Amino acid sequence: MSTLIQSIPQIQQVCGTLRRLGKRIALVPTMGSLHDGHLTLILKAKEHADEVITSVFVNPTQFGPGEDFERYPRDLDRDCSLAFAAGSDMVFAPSTAEMYPDGCQTSVDVGSIGEVLEGKSRPGHFKGVATVVAKLFHLTQPHVAVFGSKDAQQLAVLRVMVRDLNFDVGIIAAPIVREADGLALSSRNVYLSAGQRMEATTLYRSLRLAETRVGEGIRDARQVIREMTALIQERSSGIVDYISLANEDTLQEYTMLTDGDRILVSLAVRFGTTRLIDNCNIQVADR
Amino acid sequence: MSTLIQSIPQIQQVCGTLRRLGKRIALVPTMGSLHDGHLTLILKAKEHADEVITSVFVNPTQFGPGEDFERYPRDLDRDCSLAFAAGSDMVFAPSTAEMYPDGCQTSVDVGSIGEVLEGKSRPGHFKGVATVVAKLFHLTQPHVAVFGSKDAQQLAVLRVMVRDLNFDVGIIAAPIVREADGLALSSRNVYLSAGQRMEATTLYRSLRLAETRVGEGIRDARQVIREMTALIQERSSGIVDYISLANEDTLQEYTMLTDGDRILVSLAVRFGTTRLIDNCNIQVADR
Repeated sequence: MSTLIQSIPQIQQVCGTLRRLGKRIALVPTMGSLHDGHLTLILKAKEHADEVITSVFVNPTQFGPGEDFERYPRDLDRDCSLAFAAGSDMVFAPSTAEMYPDGCQTSVDVGSIGEVLEGKSRPGHFKGVATVVAKLFHLTQPHVAVFGSKDAQQLAVLRVMVRDLNFDVGIIAAPIVREADGLALSSRNVYLSAGQRMEATTLYRSLRLAETRVGEGIRDARQVIREMTALIQERSSGIVDYISLANEDTLQEYTMLTDGDRILVSLAVRFGTTRLIDNCNIQVADR
Repeated sequence: MSTLIQSIPQIQQVCGTLRRLGKRIALVPTMGSLHDGHLTLILKAKEHADEVITSVFVNPTQFGPGEDFERYPRDLDRDCSLAFAAGSDMVFAPSTAEMYPDGCQTSVDVGSIGEVLEGKSRPGHFKGVATVVAKLFHLTQPHVAVFGSKDAQQLAVLRVMVRDLNFDVGIIAAPIVREADGLALSSRNVYLSAGQRMEATTLYRSLRLAETRVGEGIRDARQVIREMTALIQERSSGIVDYISLANEDTLQEYTMLTDGDRILVSLAVRFGTTRLIDNCNIQVADR
């Protein structure tokens, strides 16, 4: 079946029935504007469940003042076509008024892990993410939920939330999908001018540089960050918001790397009014 | 069956099985030290479910610094005997270390409704309550949960949490159970000296006074509060923490009552180091 559900009582009823029938449910939470990255999440979800639900909801509480909530691209018909073609059984696309009725005031706060990196640049962002994902989990009762690795901190934050609040939901990460030249797929790439689009490959190239330099034995995180910053600044008009080498799980930043560390290299760069993020994981080799 | 479960994986496994078998689960969250008030919650829960789980957990995150977390009465053997005798099928009594392992940092914040009345006197209290109840809901997957009306603000807060986060759990309120002289049953009553115990009946008498005076047509909330305060101060050594006439659902305080209002009259009074609360609901008569 390919069903679009837009009401909360209906999704609760459908998912309650699926649960009673013993079906395994996978949720793929998205803000719509689906691209090939999202479609790999749906394919991944199908491996783990009988029924795949793709949620499409541009969540206002994870956007800060002055961010791109208003202009964020929306096209539900196109999203439904793509999601169903990729194998999603349902699309759940609730209205903002039903998700956040007047007086709605409860939030889920993930603490310090939501206050670094993206959380530092976007105060309140991860409180909004954690809250809406908690709501979606309660509404759809998934056994597993699949998230893209491009939002690496989101993954870390949601793993903490699931652990701390004892959600019985498995969090599955799907790899970043990239264009041929390395640019990570993002719904925000449509904002880029032709020139910015070419320059945006510096994000991926700086991540590859980090891999190379750590592989060569550099252990001073600040030196790696300096070289990444230089690459981006010299070869693009991008303004670096942050570049970070941090512990993969806790997101605590490293100054010196140690053999065996599993690190998340992440960055955010602005091109005009468009802010892009990217990341990679590096296991520091034992010598 | 009468089963004591103390581990998180075990309760998840048992409740997951019950859900798959189509059983209805009721949760009665307590901090132990069970009295007749709790036993009516268990009886109420049995009316609504196939399996009743009584949780016994003195939740550290809802106690403030200097409160009675350390001396709060604990007797798990007695609690199990009482809960099973009242008809609870299971007692879930996890350890603090398993509920809050190192690094646990996520909390549920219910916003302004948790910051008035008890929340004003006990900062962070309702964040602790909402967080532990969210955890218990995820661990036990109840269809319904039963709470005592003595903690009226807790009920209002949890109804807001369930609504805002879309928990699929019905919240059921059970009436306050009182001693013959009107004192509301509370695990904290054991702290009272014989003299304080007698004086503590002024809480109930002041609530009855409020009912009488509103019934007689008084609409000035401050006058009702003044008379209640005077009764307690003149006839006991109790120190009034607060007395409030507020909207039953939103807990917004009234200055003037209007015909048809449904109000929560609530109060907190200290006797030495012991802090007691009580409340009643009044529907203001239409004239």
